[in-house]
Amino acid sequence: MYYQNFEIKSLDVQDIRFPTSLGKHGSDAMHTDPDYSCAYVTISLKNTCTVGNGLTFTLGRGTEIVVAAIHSLSSLVVGEKLGDIYNNFRDFWRKLTSESQIRWIGPEKGVIHLAVAAIINALWDLWARLEEKPLWRLLVDMSPEQLVSVIDFRYITDAITEDEAIQFLKEGKENIGIRVNEIISIGYPAYTTQIGWLGYTDTYMKEMGKKFLDLGFKDFKLKVGTNLEEDIHRCKLAREIIGWNNNLMVDANQVWDTNEAIEWMKQLKEFKIKWIEEPTSPDDIVGHAKVSKALEPYGIGVATGEMCCNRVMFKQLLQMNAIQYCQIDSARIGGVNEILSVYLMAKKFGVPVCPHAGGVGLCEMVQHLQMWDYCALTKTKDNRIIEYVDQQHEHFEDPTLIKNAKYQAPMKPGYSTRLKKEAIDTYKYPCGSYWKSINN
Amino acid sequence: MYYQNFEIKSLDVQDIRFPTSLGKHGSDAMHTDPDYSCAYVTISLKNTCTVGNGLTFTLGRGTEIVVAAIHSLSSLVVGEKLGDIYNNFRDFWRKLTSESQIRWIGPEKGVIHLAVAAIINALWDLWARLEEKPLWRLLVDMSPEQLVSVIDFRYITDAITEDEAIQFLKEGKENIGIRVNEIISIGYPAYTTQIGWLGYTDTYMKEMGKKFLDLGFKDFKLKVGTNLEEDIHRCKLAREIIGWNNNLMVDANQVWDTNEAIEWMKQLKEFKIKWIEEPTSPDDIVGHAKVSKALEPYGIGVATGEMCCNRVMFKQLLQMNAIQYCQIDSARIGGVNEILSVYLMAKKFGVPVCPHAGGVGLCEMVQHLQMWDYCALTKTKDNRIIEYVDQQHEHFEDPTLIKNAKYQAPMKPGYSTRLKKEAIDTYKYPCGSYWKSINN
Repeated sequence: MYYQNFEIKSLDVQDIRFPTSLGKHGSDAMHTDPDYSCAYVTISLKNTCTVGNGLTFTLGRGTEIVVAAIHSLSSLVVGEKLGDIYNNFRDFWRKLTSESQIRWIGPEKGVIHLAVAAIINALWDLWARLEEKPLWRLLVDMSPEQLVSVIDFRYITDAITEDEAIQFLKEGKENIGIRVNEIISIGYPAYTTQIGWLGYTDTYMKEMGKKFLDLGFKDFKLKVGTNLEEDIHRCKLAREIIGWNNNLMVDANQVWDTNEAIEWMKQLKEFKIKWIEEPTSPDDIVGHAKVSKALEPYGIGVATGEMCCNRVMFKQLLQMNAIQYCQIDSARIGGVNEILSVYLMAKKFGVPVCPHAGGVGLCEMVQHLQMWDYCALTKTKDNRIIEYVDQQHEHFEDPTLIKNAKYQAPMKPGYSTRLKKEAIDTYKYPCGSYWKSINN
Repeated sequence: MYYQNFEIKSLDVQDIRFPTSLGKHGSDAMHTDPDYSCAYVTISLKNTCTVGNGLTFTLGRGTEIVVAAIHSLSSLVVGEKLGDIYNNFRDFWRKLTSESQIRWIGPEKGVIHLAVAAIINALWDLWARLEEKPLWRLLVDMSPEQLVSVIDFRYITDAITEDEAIQFLKEGKENIGIRVNEIISIGYPAYTTQIGWLGYTDTYMKEMGKKFLDLGFKDFKLKVGTNLEEDIHRCKLAREIIGWNNNLMVDANQVWDTNEAIEWMKQLKEFKIKWIEEPTSPDDIVGHAKVSKALEPYGIGVATGEMCCNRVMFKQLLQMNAIQYCQIDSARIGGVNEILSVYLMAKKFGVPVCPHAGGVGLCEMVQHLQMWDYCALTKTKDNRIIEYVDQQHEHFEDPTLIKNAKYQAPMKPGYSTRLKKEAIDTYKYPCGSYWKSINN
C-alpha cells in the first residue's frame, strides 16, 4: 500500500448535538427526549490531505463523557504509521480495547467501547478513502484471509474459529460479481420506524404511513411499551394504515421485565407482529431466550442488538437461541472489526442480521456492512432488512439515498460518515451557532 | 430523620492515583502495570459540616474519564434534599442510572455505572455518618421493608421478587443480636492474594507466604494464566509454602477462552484448587457455565464478579449455575443499592458471596457488606471469605483492621471511605506533590 508509511498527525473530536427532542422524533418508552448526537472524530495524516471521519451515536447529554474517553485514547493512535495499523489491524484493535490500565473501566463496553467505535470507524473511513472505494467495496474486495485478519477472536472461539470464518468467506466469493452488480443497480431493502414514535398523534401516524407506503415501503415498526391499551390502539391503527400484507414490527426499548414482556406481547398477537425488539434489558441473554421460546407459538420473533455491548454478548444471544433477528449497531460495539465478527457468528448460527439504524450516521454506515454481508458472506437478502429513518441525513456529505424503499449503494470513497462543515458549525455543542442562539 | 430537609450543596470529585505499578503489586495476566487509583467523591450539605465520601476503584489511566462522568451526573444530585433521596432511594438510584439521555452510553455498565457507584457510595457514607453508625450497622438495623425499598428490582423479578427478599430478611432478624456481638468480638475471615502477584519472585513468594501464615491466614490466592509451566511451578511452590490443609485459589483475570480455561485448569487439578477466578470474559455467562460444569469433577469451583457490570449479569450467572462463588465488587456495580440485590439473589440461589477486594478502598467498603450479610441475611460464614490485600489502607482515616486473619468490625460512623487529607494532597493526579515531583 502506497500509504504504508503515512503517519497519523492528529485525532480531533467534537461533540455534535441535534435538537431532535423538540419534535419528539426518536422518542421511545425509555428515551423520552433524545437529542440525536454524536462524538465525531477526525483523523489527519502528516503526508496527505486525506482525512478520515468516524462517529459514535449518542442521545445528547453524556456525549461529553464519550468525547473525554476519545481524548484519552487518542495517544494510542497519534504518531502511528498506517501500515502498522492496517497490516495488523487485529492487534491494533486489541491495543485500543485492552489498554492495560483503561481496560478496567470497561472492558469492551459502555463509554470506552463507544469511544473505540468512533476511532475505529474513522480509521476505516480513512482506509476506504485512501483506497478510493466505498467501504462496502473495500470489504468485498478483500481476500477471506485479509478480512479475517482484522478480527479479534478472543472470547468467541467456542462459537466460531478463524478457519470457519475463512471458509464462509471463500464460499461467499462464488459469483460475487453478480451480487455486486445487483446491489449497485437495485440496492438493499429498508424498513421504516417513522410511522410510530411514541409522541406521534393518530393523524400524524396516518400521514407518515401514507408517505412511506407511497414511497414503496412494505415493512414498518412501532414503538410500544408504555401503555397496553394505547399499544393495542396503535397496532390496530398501524394495520389499518399498512394492511395485512406488509410487515409490522414493534419495539419496546427495554421497558419490560421478562415475564411482563411475554404477557404484554400475547396481548398484541392478533396484529401479526414479525418481531418484538428489545423486550427487556440488553444484557439479559437468559431473559431474551425465555421470551423467544414463549412467543414462538405466536410467530413473533425476538430482535435485539442496538445496545448489545460487544461480540461476547452477541455470541451468547446466538448460542442460547435468544434472538431470531440480530440487530447490529454500527456505532456501538468496537467499530467495523468487531461488527464483522458478529456477522460471521450470525452466519454460523443461521440468524439474519437486520441492522439498527436511524440515529446520526447510523443509516450512512450500516448500509455498507449489510451490502458486504449480501455480496460476500450470506449471499441472501431473505428475511433481512435495514432500518431507515429520514433524519439528519442532510448534514452528511454523502448521505444515504433511498429509492423504491431500498438503500442505494454508496459509490463515493469512504464510510459515508463525513459531516458537512456547516452542520458542525451550527450544531457543535455548546458553542455552535444553534446552541449559542438557544442559550442567549 | 432530623436531616430530612438538609440540602446537598456540592458534589466534588478528585482523580487520585497511587504509583503501585512501580512495585508490580497488583499485576496480573491482563493488567500488567496497574496504578491503583480511584475517582473520589465528596458530597457536602448546606446545613451541616457532615460530608459523605465515596469512590470507585480504577487502575490509573482512564480515571479522568470516570471523573468526567461524575461531573456530568452531579447536576442530578446537587440541590436535592436528603429526605427525597433516602426516603425514596430506589427511585433516586434509577434517576441516576436511567437518565433519559445519558442512559444510552451505558446502560448500567462501564464508565457511567462506575460513576454512579462512586456517587451512591458517598451518599451511603453520608447517611451512615448522619445516623452515627458504621454502614454495616445501619443496614443491620433497617427493617426488611426499608432495606428492600432501596433496591431497583427492574430486570430481576424473574429471579427474585420484593416479597421473597422481605421474607429472607425477616428470617435474618432471628437472633440477630448474637451475630452482631460475634462480628464485633471476632470479626470476619479474610484470605490473601498477596503471595502470588505475577511479578513476584520465588523468594518473595516464600517471604510473603511465611508472613501471612504467621498472621493466621488459611486461604491463599495465586495469579495464573500467562504461562502454564510457570503456573505449575507456582502452584507447587504455593502448596510447599502453605501445605495441603489450607485453601488455594487461583485467578486468571480473564485471559482464556472457554475451552482453553478448561484445558489449562485440568493441568492444575493436582494442586487441589478451591476455585478458578475469572477464567474468561466477565461477560461470558454461557462460557462460565461451561467451565463450571467441566471442572466440577475436579472439585474446582468457578468464581467471578469483580468486573461483572450489573445485577442483570449476576442474575444470569446464578440462573445458569455458572458460578460457585459470587464475587461482588463494592466499587463497580451501581453502589450499595444494587449490591444488596446481588446478595439477595445469591441467597436465593444458595451461592456464597466471597467479595473481591484489594484495590483502593475495596477492603474498607466490602467488610461492611459482608458483615451485614452474616448478621441479617444468610446467618452463616460457611464457605465465605473476604479477599484481603494490605495496600493503601494507610491512606484512609478509618482503615481496615485485620486480627487473626479476620476483618475487625468497623465501629466508626460511615462507610470507611474517607481518605486522609495528606493522601489527597500527595496523590491527586496530576497536581499532587508526588505526581508533580515525578513529572519534574
